[in-house]
Amino acid sequence: MNQLINEAVIKLVDNLQLPERVFNIDDLPWVPFDDGTCFFKPLRFDLSTGLWTYLFKIKSNKVLTRNRHTGGCVIGYNLQGQWRYEGRKWIAKPGTFIFEPPGDIHTLITEDEEVIALFILGGSLQYFDENNAIIGQDDIYTVIKKYRDYCTENGLEVREDLFY
Amino acid sequence: MNQLINEAVIKLVDNLQLPERVFNIDDLPWVPFDDGTCFFKPLRFDLSTGLWTYLFKIKSNKVLTRNRHTGGCVIGYNLQGQWRYEGRKWIAKPGTFIFEPPGDIHTLITEDEEVIALFILGGSLQYFDENNAIIGQDDIYTVIKKYRDYCTENGLEVREDLFY
Amino acid sequence: MNQLINEAVIKLVDNLQLPERVFNIDDLPWVPFDDGTCFFKPLRFDLSTGLWTYLFKIKSNKVLTRNRHTGGCVIGYNLQGQWRYEGRKWIAKPGTFIFEPPGDIHTLITEDEEVIALFILGGSLQYFDENNAIIGQDDIYTVIKKYRDYCTENGLEVREDLFY
Amino acid sequence: MNQLINEAVIKLVDNLQLPERVFNIDDLPWVPFDDGTCFFKPLRFDLSTGLWTYLFKIKSNKVLTRNRHTGGCVIGYNLQGQWRYEGRKWIAKPGTFIFEPPGDIHTLITEDEEVIALFILGGSLQYFDENNAIIGQDDIYTVIKKYRDYCTENGLEVREDLFY
Repeated sequence: MNQLINEAVIKLVDNLQLPERVFNIDDLPWVPFDDGTCFFKPLRFDLSTGLWTYLFKIKSNKVLTRNRHTGGCVIGYNLQGQWRYEGRKWIAKPGTFIFEPPGDIHTLITEDEEVIALFILGGSLQYFDENNAIIGQDDIYTVIKKYRDYCTENGLEVREDLFY
Repeated sequence: MNQLINEAVIKLVDNLQLPERVFNIDDLPWVPFDDGTCFFKPLRFDLSTGLWTYLFKIKSNKVLTRNRHTGGCVIGYNLQGQWRYEGRKWIAKPGTFIFEPPGDIHTLITEDEEVIALFILGGSLQYFDENNAIIGQDDIYTVIKKYRDYCTENGLEVREDLFY
Repeated sequence: MNQLINEAVIKLVDNLQLPERVFNIDDLPWVPFDDGTCFFKPLRFDLSTGLWTYLFKIKSNKVLTRNRHTGGCVIGYNLQGQWRYEGRKWIAKPGTFIFEPPGDIHTLITEDEEVIALFILGGSLQYFDENNAIIGQDDIYTVIKKYRDYCTENGLEVREDLFY
Repeated sequence: MNQLINEAVIKLVDNLQLPERVFNIDDLPWVPFDDGTCFFKPLRFDLSTGLWTYLFKIKSNKVLTRNRHTGGCVIGYNLQGQWRYEGRKWIAKPGTFIFEPPGDIHTLITEDEEVIALFILGGSLQYFDENNAIIGQDDIYTVIKKYRDYCTENGLEVREDLFY
């Protein structure tokens, strides 16, 4: 094996590889996601695939707009509080891992404590009214826009190392 | 190394790994994509990520509806004919490889020969009118639906091994 | 829009989409990863892409074998304890998010508290001696093997819904 | 919908999105992959995920070293010539699409015509001798190194837009 994972390759990797990225959530703001129910701390915007990663905070005792994950999956890890999707049998508690396949439609409901969860999302979030008409949409770029606008409005520097 | 890539691991992989999938395009139908301008042969529907792969055929001298790749990128390899995106400097010929980042908006125009290209897509395709209003959308599921409906209508067996 | 995200598509998605997966970490065992320094709770094995997700636990005051992430990146979110890579300026604390690009070589060192972190990994982990010779390797299948063997040895049922 | 996919978002995307990448294979060299049996034209090196895309050429009537795709899958589309994996029932012809899951071990055999195929690969390629010992390895960085070395040796400019 040595002839291939040798010093020349290791040196090449050193020169070529993307920079590592390390953020502590204490260094990032809570950015409003909507009208004051949800907030996020951006962690990664992958401009090559359209995936984004954020810490998501939802106020207690809220029912979010019914939404569909169009063209991408959701990976979540719940850190604080309890929440569920309307009609499902499980409740997300601290330490619950969730995979939702592309196309899933759900209505998220929080319980008595504020929720904080880590989410990795792809594709787009489409919001529905009760007649299944689409009334809004988020994707990597609208989330970026919320973050950049918030920084501008609050005199914060945009962390360009969030973008790949 | 031998102790880890050993017979026990190789045997485990044999038991666990997903089946390989091999299709020759001669064994798949040209499914109508829209009103008669575009057709596709499905090659792979990845239900875990929302990515789909197809061979795409576009009639000559056509201008497709302006569309945006929302939440996913496009990887293409052109096999036959020539096409371009309105306003770009390049022309796709046989042997042209294309990467379009998520969010790209473009209007595809074919030249005098029928186009056939291999595409891998993620997220959703959203179609715009001249006022930038969304007038339609495709994603992995609507493409699946076109395929399944076509099979049903034409008495063809649905190839379930296209779905992961 | 309504004509495309209509009831027929929603019904199709219901029939086709992969099942959601929800695990609470309390329901999964700590599986030994190596000789007793590291343990993991499996959360997801994506057999289509080779990505795996686990909660990883490392004892305090340990120095792990120097390793390279060959052919895949690492996404991490630290939950408990402090750790660092030898020679880097940052320290992972609870709430630190880490992206390591493919090819990164590092030596992980924990501090006075046991570490628990969420990791999503792709490609393979290759372990080096001080002469940069590869002395071992892990990938999705060796991790699966550790989990399955542990279940067998301890009379635990293998959770088949961890595998996609 | 208009309020979200509006002019402000479109303008933001214009400013943020990665550049498109378009290559015609006539503009890229055939780079030697090994000792003179295989050659490639690089099309894309995704430094964020470790995936690489290339056109791969194999001389006629050859048997390649048995290899394992460790930690990543293979997507292939055959363009010219015929080939097969030892012991499998299918033969890749022009227009054959192939998905090989992570972990697959195979020995590629070409027939009487030179083979050209498009491949997208992740993870690493590990080569085995008849005792299942690993005797070599390729991944995104060793492929990059072959390409860069070839350019240097032949006075060709390295196309930096192949790297993301």
